[in-house]
Amino acid sequence: MSEKAIPYKIYLEENEMPRQWYNVRADMKNKPAPLLNPGTLEPMTAQELEAVFCKELVQQELDDVHPYIDIPEDIRNFYKMYRPSPLVRAYCLEEKLQTPAKIYYKFEGNNTSGSHKLNSAIAQAYYAKQQGLRGVTTETGAGQWGTALSMACSYFGLDCKVYMVKVSYEQKPFRREVMRTYGASVTPSPSETTEVGKRILKAHPGTTGSLGCAISEAVEAATSMEGYRYVLGSVLSQVLLHQTIIGLETKAALDKYNIVPDMIIGCAGGGSNLGGLISPFMGEMLRGERDYQFIAVEPASCPSLTRGRYVYDFCDTGMVCPLAKMYTLGSGFIPSPNHSGGLRYHGMSSILSQLYDDGLMEARSVEQTAVFTAAEQFARVEGILPAPESSHAIRVAIDEAMKCRETGEEKTIVFGLTGTGYFDMVAYEKFHNGEMNDYIPTDADLQVGFDGLPKVEK
Amino acid sequence: MSEKAIPYKIYLEENEMPRQWYNVRADMKNKPAPLLNPGTLEPMTAQELEAVFCKELVQQELDDVHPYIDIPEDIRNFYKMYRPSPLVRAYCLEEKLQTPAKIYYKFEGNNTSGSHKLNSAIAQAYYAKQQGLRGVTTETGAGQWGTALSMACSYFGLDCKVYMVKVSYEQKPFRREVMRTYGASVTPSPSETTEVGKRILKAHPGTTGSLGCAISEAVEAATSMEGYRYVLGSVLSQVLLHQTIIGLETKAALDKYNIVPDMIIGCAGGGSNLGGLISPFMGEMLRGERDYQFIAVEPASCPSLTRGRYVYDFCDTGMVCPLAKMYTLGSGFIPSPNHSGGLRYHGMSSILSQLYDDGLMEARSVEQTAVFTAAEQFARVEGILPAPESSHAIRVAIDEAMKCRETGEEKTIVFGLTGTGYFDMVAYEKFHNGEMNDYIPTDADLQVGFDGLPKVEK
Repeated sequence: MSEKAIPYKIYLEENEMPRQWYNVRADMKNKPAPLLNPGTLEPMTAQELEAVFCKELVQQELDDVHPYIDIPEDIRNFYKMYRPSPLVRAYCLEEKLQTPAKIYYKFEGNNTSGSHKLNSAIAQAYYAKQQGLRGVTTETGAGQWGTALSMACSYFGLDCKVYMVKVSYEQKPFRREVMRTYGASVTPSPSETTEVGKRILKAHPGTTGSLGCAISEAVEAATSMEGYRYVLGSVLSQVLLHQTIIGLETKAALDKYNIVPDMIIGCAGGGSNLGGLISPFMGEMLRGERDYQFIAVEPASCPSLTRGRYVYDFCDTGMVCPLAKMYTLGSGFIPSPNHSGGLRYHGMSSILSQLYDDGLMEARSVEQTAVFTAAEQFARVEGILPAPESSHAIRVAIDEAMKCRETGEEKTIVFGLTGTGYFDMVAYEKFHNGEMNDYIPTDADLQVGFDGLPKVEK
Repeated sequence: MSEKAIPYKIYLEENEMPRQWYNVRADMKNKPAPLLNPGTLEPMTAQELEAVFCKELVQQELDDVHPYIDIPEDIRNFYKMYRPSPLVRAYCLEEKLQTPAKIYYKFEGNNTSGSHKLNSAIAQAYYAKQQGLRGVTTETGAGQWGTALSMACSYFGLDCKVYMVKVSYEQKPFRREVMRTYGASVTPSPSETTEVGKRILKAHPGTTGSLGCAISEAVEAATSMEGYRYVLGSVLSQVLLHQTIIGLETKAALDKYNIVPDMIIGCAGGGSNLGGLISPFMGEMLRGERDYQFIAVEPASCPSLTRGRYVYDFCDTGMVCPLAKMYTLGSGFIPSPNHSGGLRYHGMSSILSQLYDDGLMEARSVEQTAVFTAAEQFARVEGILPAPESSHAIRVAIDEAMKCRETGEEKTIVFGLTGTGYFDMVAYEKFHNGEMNDYIPTDADLQVGFDGLPKVEK
């Protein structure tokens, strides 16, 4: 098919939408290491996990055998409200950069939560509803996940209790109001509603909270109330599974026009968006069918892949969750307050960690002023106002396209544009006013987190 | 075609996108009254208008003869970045309401400006560029238009000077930052940068500004700088013309599935969105081909169609613009500060005013708490967080669907969902906290505006 025939946006028809998620673990030779019980250091059993998570989601978490898992019809119907999402050919950006590279991005921001988080939120809410639960609890930092979960719970008539890191609760009142619009209750964390919250407030009366503390409160709330479970927006393998809808749609859209990407780029915080985007392509590579270059992009201020260690660590700062083997900066690592947006999680999905350790994926770290420069450049020609998180991928996509301009190579680059930046204008304002600083932790800064790593001989 | 075959979202292919705008004036028996020179009370000539507006846009403003006007290729290419917009079947809302009505909405919020305003902004920027201008000036209230124009100017490399009503400038810093991201300069109005601004600041030192004052400043800035013209985001016939892309796409999408709407509903401030949505359908009615019910929805606090007068009036408070014959509350009318969002313009598009006066269109006014109730109900089932402006149409669409539930009629309802409410969370917060009041002006309140109407015997 000739170049000319490729439209600005490739949309799938509804009947071309994936009916199954793809479980990349089934094709991995080296499986991700199992979650461990922090007390016994033995692999967590389904029964243990079901005290915290929904039953069906525990099955998905533990399943590294079945390559395809059916997407229930109710979830597919919800997906139809905002999916398929467009795969956009960035003609305007290519022209601006004067590059021979062909750039595509999969845009996940066209829903009210403003990000890809909704793909997993609706799945998790569905299984909670199926199990007959009254509601779910969760934490949110920047607010994307909390917003997505509120929307999903509202759709299924589930109660939704969100613990929002106090500093975000105060600085992002609009995010809070969106969640309230969808009927969620939003509590600034730490709060007086949990034992762990009370304990932390007593010890640190002026604290503005942290993601780790909010997780601990949400888990306590879920396990102490009848009919509630805890749900999480990234890191876990179940979340990556749901997010493969991104990669499956991307692959179907590319296949429609016989396009084969050379490289696939995504930003990585906990890893769910990147994992979801690359999984189907990674599967081809794992099965020896085709080669791709995969690039995970993380902030230089929170560099878990590029400077972290591949060890067992706690998923939360409060150390109440299971241990996961992952690239981590240590659950005691505290990202700089200078850092804008999300991607500030200390660890990385165990699936992506294993793939990275096996040399199947690259990682790069980028500084935030360079990220916002790319974001603004992108916005001005492609129209979309990108989230700071997504702009990490834009930065590296532009860098790679500029390399093609040097070499004359006509590489095909695909990147994930995970969301919009409407609620991140404070960061954009800092950038416009020249008040944004870069921060790269020293080895000594990182040592603090590493010192707190649990000792697990696995 | 059977009911089942209609997808959640009807997308057109790129090659099905309209290549011409539709000029409804060509099919109107009673043409809209001409703009008048406020000094001579004679119809404005093209030459007079060209001192303020771009040459090609003046031609479009004056043209009530040609039914179709070609969309230049550059504009069509820009449209492809965010259009065609989806026509969504509101299956979830229908189920929630338990109505036999079939509800569709044309969603114009899937672009960074967050509203339909971009459809005309890109056209106006294009013609300014074609004319070899350096830049354009405009005013913005709630900020949707300023954002759209900033994006459009950034695309064509035009300078963009936005006068933003001071109270919005201060209360909506995020809107301001989005405009700055696209390279626009944003000045709070009234300002020291214009004579009219200085005069008003001297007379009212503490004023927080008004749309009328910002228009006057923008017009002065355009006419006093070499290579600049003034552009406007609604009311004018040229703007309605560009917005017919909405209605043309809607009609093409409906035709694809042999759907014939019974009623078409839109919110109306200056009238550009509503006019753009209904024009192609109105054309069929004017040509005697088919009947439809058209409903304009306006806020009870600014009821220009339902309680205004059809007379010649100034388009701006500063009385520097031409006179237009329109349904108006008087250019001296001041909407209640309680009123949330846009739709606070004192007058109405002269095209829509004439159609309304000819009995071809209905109008309803609704109160804002009822509007936000509908907005929240819609958001929870359809996912999209609607702008307060758009939610006026949602309110009446729901009301009509509920009537169908009473009568059992399976009416097909189409409404325009003009944009998203991400920057309107202050209003949502008021609503959630029960702090939102309704305001209906008394006849005495309205008399103030009517007393200031110019005396024109036409």
